[in-house]
Amino acid sequence: MIVRFKRPDSSIAWGWQTQQGIQDLCSADDSLPTSTRELILRWSEFESRIVPLIKKLGPTEERLELLCPLDVPGKILCIGLNYRDHALETDAPIPEEPIVFNKASTSLCGPNDPIEIPSSSSQVDFEAELVVVVGQRLKGATEEQAKRAIFGYTAGNDVSARDWQKGKPGKQWFLGKSFDTFAPIGPAIALASSIPDPRKLRIESRLNGQTMQNSTTAELIFKPEMLLSYISQVLTIEPGDLLFTGTPAGVGVARSPQVFLKPGDCIEVQIEMIGTISNRCVGL
Amino acid sequence: MIVRFKRPDSSIAWGWQTQQGIQDLCSADDSLPTSTRELILRWSEFESRIVPLIKKLGPTEERLELLCPLDVPGKILCIGLNYRDHALETDAPIPEEPIVFNKASTSLCGPNDPIEIPSSSSQVDFEAELVVVVGQRLKGATEEQAKRAIFGYTAGNDVSARDWQKGKPGKQWFLGKSFDTFAPIGPAIALASSIPDPRKLRIESRLNGQTMQNSTTAELIFKPEMLLSYISQVLTIEPGDLLFTGTPAGVGVARSPQVFLKPGDCIEVQIEMIGTISNRCVGL
Repeated sequence: MIVRFKRPDSSIAWGWQTQQGIQDLCSADDSLPTSTRELILRWSEFESRIVPLIKKLGPTEERLELLCPLDVPGKILCIGLNYRDHALETDAPIPEEPIVFNKASTSLCGPNDPIEIPSSSSQVDFEAELVVVVGQRLKGATEEQAKRAIFGYTAGNDVSARDWQKGKPGKQWFLGKSFDTFAPIGPAIALASSIPDPRKLRIESRLNGQTMQNSTTAELIFKPEMLLSYISQVLTIEPGDLLFTGTPAGVGVARSPQVFLKPGDCIEVQIEMIGTISNRCVGL
Repeated sequence: MIVRFKRPDSSIAWGWQTQQGIQDLCSADDSLPTSTRELILRWSEFESRIVPLIKKLGPTEERLELLCPLDVPGKILCIGLNYRDHALETDAPIPEEPIVFNKASTSLCGPNDPIEIPSSSSQVDFEAELVVVVGQRLKGATEEQAKRAIFGYTAGNDVSARDWQKGKPGKQWFLGKSFDTFAPIGPAIALASSIPDPRKLRIESRLNGQTMQNSTTAELIFKPEMLLSYISQVLTIEPGDLLFTGTPAGVGVARSPQVFLKPGDCIEVQIEMIGTISNRCVGL
């Protein structure tokens, strides 16, 4: 899995995470780009050099600070109500067509970055999501083409200020979903080739250690390649763009009593075969 | 005014447009960046070299093809129902708070580029808009700070597939506003310092030569600096981001009978002191 990190000397690079630790590929081969966006764009060119490196290199002993696996954010495309169990808990009909919205690119942050709770919202909620990292340009793509264009998967939290999402004139979700730090992703990008079936992954969120969402991606109504194909009928999807695929049941706003994030809380999202992001909430 | 263009030899650069023609500043000083995004980011550094150049340089005799004045799109922030006359024609209440949505960065195109009419929509509409080009980073900004951060203004057409905007589950406007080519802007970026009062500009659209919208920016409900300050309470606005400030009365969907764009149509947006964009519609 690809991780991006800061070394003790503050330099930033990416490497390969295994059970044993993190291999610092960039220091082993300094002709590799240090940008993961560049890496994704030119993956076919670098793959043949990366694979043998991974086989021979041992894990680094340096203490690395994990960063957002994408250094340059592209579009952050998102799907609403895409889990059967979540549609049911919010009393919404099962959508016959995907509900597409987006988050501002500036909301992206890393797997252990703080989530800033704005003073203008008292309803900041969490949404554990499987996130698709796009590897190739898609326009008017078939599902087959879209599937081949998936570079990998990561875990994400589609943090949402419900009072802004639902309570403003015009009912547009964009602002409520786009506060800075409202899109933590990570800890790693698992290559698509390493996930045998992206619809058989356990997905969980935990608030201060207590399980809030616990489902599997088998509950997804629309699968990733269908979503990418659908959106690509409208707009060009570019390498490095992200697709947040929707959240399962158990979000704070649908609980009784409702639960919202407050400064000091720790919210985790864990996805099987990918890992866990853990973000502490801070007041602003 | 800043224009970006392709020269007869296919090289791309930017220059300065006056009544007399276009000065090719980049060829006069090849240490200037050819990217207008770079120019905006580092304006304070280049301004003192550009001003004397403009004074002494004559217009080029080359035939230039005008391009989208921004080479690298940032966020495209947009406001709904921000003209009194447009709110009235759509039977919507005058908003007490801005309605903010956005268009995908991939929808941006140039002042004379074709607008692609997708076969999946039969309700593609036009919206003449004054567009703010942001010059400085804004987060939690006051209106005064926001005003100083305005780099300039351009004309834009917030092209909208009404059936996608209003007729899909979830009622999110993002996709209907984000088809590729649905955000033509140009022809020039007028520096903020050259527009004495951005709320005293005539704004018009013409469909095949016939006037469809004819208003002034005095009808704006929320002024540009208020909008930027408001949005910056939520998310970081970056240099090169655009703000489409809303459209006046006369859009196709509100007419009786309704008027929508079809292949072969020519739709123009003209804003006083800035210029005219003229986009031909093509079928897909």
